[in-house]
Amino acid sequence: MSTTKKILLRKSTASENEASQPPSWLAEFTAKSPLLLDCGEQIGPFVIAYQTYGSLNSNRSNAILICHALTGDQHVASNNPITGRCGWWERMVGPGRPIDTKRYFVICSNIIGGCMGSTGAASINPETDKPYGLDFPVLTIADMVDAQVRLVDHLGIDELFAVVGGSMGGMQVLDWASRYKDRVYSAVPIATAPWHSSQNIALHEVGRQAVMADPDWCKGNYLTEGRVPRRGLSVARMAAHVTYLSERALQQKFGRNLQNRKNRSFSFSADFQVESYLRYQGSSFVDRFDANSYLYITRAMDYFDLAADNGGILANAFRGTKTRFCIVSFTSDWLYPTRESKAIVQALNAVAADVSFVEIDSDKGHDAFLLDEPEMFATIGGFLKAGARRRGISELKEA
Amino acid sequence: MSTTKKILLRKSTASENEASQPPSWLAEFTAKSPLLLDCGEQIGPFVIAYQTYGSLNSNRSNAILICHALTGDQHVASNNPITGRCGWWERMVGPGRPIDTKRYFVICSNIIGGCMGSTGAASINPETDKPYGLDFPVLTIADMVDAQVRLVDHLGIDELFAVVGGSMGGMQVLDWASRYKDRVYSAVPIATAPWHSSQNIALHEVGRQAVMADPDWCKGNYLTEGRVPRRGLSVARMAAHVTYLSERALQQKFGRNLQNRKNRSFSFSADFQVESYLRYQGSSFVDRFDANSYLYITRAMDYFDLAADNGGILANAFRGTKTRFCIVSFTSDWLYPTRESKAIVQALNAVAADVSFVEIDSDKGHDAFLLDEPEMFATIGGFLKAGARRRGISELKEA
Repeated sequence: MSTTKKILLRKSTASENEASQPPSWLAEFTAKSPLLLDCGEQIGPFVIAYQTYGSLNSNRSNAILICHALTGDQHVASNNPITGRCGWWERMVGPGRPIDTKRYFVICSNIIGGCMGSTGAASINPETDKPYGLDFPVLTIADMVDAQVRLVDHLGIDELFAVVGGSMGGMQVLDWASRYKDRVYSAVPIATAPWHSSQNIALHEVGRQAVMADPDWCKGNYLTEGRVPRRGLSVARMAAHVTYLSERALQQKFGRNLQNRKNRSFSFSADFQVESYLRYQGSSFVDRFDANSYLYITRAMDYFDLAADNGGILANAFRGTKTRFCIVSFTSDWLYPTRESKAIVQALNAVAADVSFVEIDSDKGHDAFLLDEPEMFATIGGFLKAGARRRGISELKEA
Repeated sequence: MSTTKKILLRKSTASENEASQPPSWLAEFTAKSPLLLDCGEQIGPFVIAYQTYGSLNSNRSNAILICHALTGDQHVASNNPITGRCGWWERMVGPGRPIDTKRYFVICSNIIGGCMGSTGAASINPETDKPYGLDFPVLTIADMVDAQVRLVDHLGIDELFAVVGGSMGGMQVLDWASRYKDRVYSAVPIATAPWHSSQNIALHEVGRQAVMADPDWCKGNYLTEGRVPRRGLSVARMAAHVTYLSERALQQKFGRNLQNRKNRSFSFSADFQVESYLRYQGSSFVDRFDANSYLYITRAMDYFDLAADNGGILANAFRGTKTRFCIVSFTSDWLYPTRESKAIVQALNAVAADVSFVEIDSDKGHDAFLLDEPEMFATIGGFLKAGARRRGISELKEA
């Protein structure tokens, strides 16, 4: 059914996505066992790129799956080969960290539809020998989870000790806990929501329109045409990036400070530090991310509505659950406000689930879950440790 | 020094801005009396397009100047000849309205740098006989106010009974009250701030980058090239429009409702009502607004900082004022939150000014000041009526 190989980074050529060849493990699934999708189509063959940290214990009970957010990837706790920067959650995952790799076997895979090695719109369509582009089927969060299920099966793991993720990662956590109740011992959805709000759909639509407005997008065929919609994707990233921060965070970080000048330039150059910062965020993003992937992933998030999937009643998503939940929100997160985490808590309470909920006082906005938030580390570390004791998971001895 | 003529709407041709010929009064100022600008340059000749409503009383004491916001215009209480829609503040201005045209002589002018008849980047540069484009000087809020001062002089009015405006209009109100203390009897800054925040600069920069990313922008020379950066300006408008509403307003208005369909399309068409609405907002905006004007006006707002202009102490801006202030903010306005209105109130209190302040409970976001907000109407109507009694302004008799 599936095989695994480790591929190495090689220099990309102009016609391919630079992000398509990270040195990750690849789980390959053949056309004989395609992934069935919510839209009614299927993908096969497909690959899932992933990283693991720590060791699986003998009874295979200590695995934690980490689900990444919109622009995240599998490099959760080790250097990202594309950016050269450290893993995106090294504060959370590693030896002695809240998700302690001396105790847990950590798996993080690039989502299906992503652009860091898993099959996505930039991958070669075996039927045409060209990149899929917009021929790639539109995915849902559930499709991403089903691909993860295939990976977890492939790794021979029946039950995950925990599924953990923030933002879109949190949506995946909720979907896992809803549809694979027997396979999730504990679930940690962070800075997320049980459905994508009208405002969030609107913000995503702005980003998609920015990408699609770029003539270099070529109706989705830019890879075949040897072009990259740099400007459109950069604008999309800039627009999104503002929403990940809080007004106060921007004020504290940049205020109205000018960038390398004493006076206003009376021009449209980046007078203010915040402008310069945003421009950098936009242009550096283009170097590591595929524009069509951005469209597909934002669309999947827009489609997410766990209540609608369960007859309009969110509690139905969790009926009969034995999973232990730890839900975390942040006071200054205006994309996924605490109100939406509370809707999850209320639904879980309605089915008498085991749930703890912490709203963390932070001025860092939505991005707080990626940053240095000691209360988050203490909350999640403590929650997992208590569960590990109950589940009989102890620190692994040195090999 | 200046002459006035009324011009009529005529069909635009491909090479000129459709918004350049509204049927408004035009105050023309010759090259012999140019407008001196903050950047050190000057503009002359220049014209200011304006509308008036009601009649000036015999002692010229009943004039109210209304200052429009970023994408507003002089058509505050009468049909807009470009869009065919009613004036943008007809709920506020008209016979029997809070700004009662049976009592007050209302003036509203298109800002300098605008695209509804006043001189701006789309106007013909007399030195080249081509549209200014980026040769137009970068303006400030103070430059806009100085152009209004010229208009008010031209109309023979020494003291304005009130200067009223929301958002960027409120910035103009504050600047008037700061630099022309003897000419402003009362001031009504609504949903505004004494300086443009880091977040607001960031949001504007996203919009500017969207415009400038469009190849049809032609480095600002699109009018000369016979092109229009439709896609870029549309994306800029969409991004901005989301920020004018509140999350709750979007949720109540659109929620996750699908647009003319029962099921998700699994495509990138506008499945959700909120997407369809946003796309319409973007495309209709392009028909009425000039892309370079959008750059210039957002830049002027970014540069606004009344504290910095007064040695870093906002109270200094108002020292010695005798103006009566009425300051209004809205609970769900996250662009110009109440905190920033309170900073104005505190500065005014520090110089013992006559100030009343109302925070209005609304879920309509920043746009609330343009919408049906009875408490705002009652507050501003009552404030003006009390001032009118004190100033000896009575309802005008029918001619």
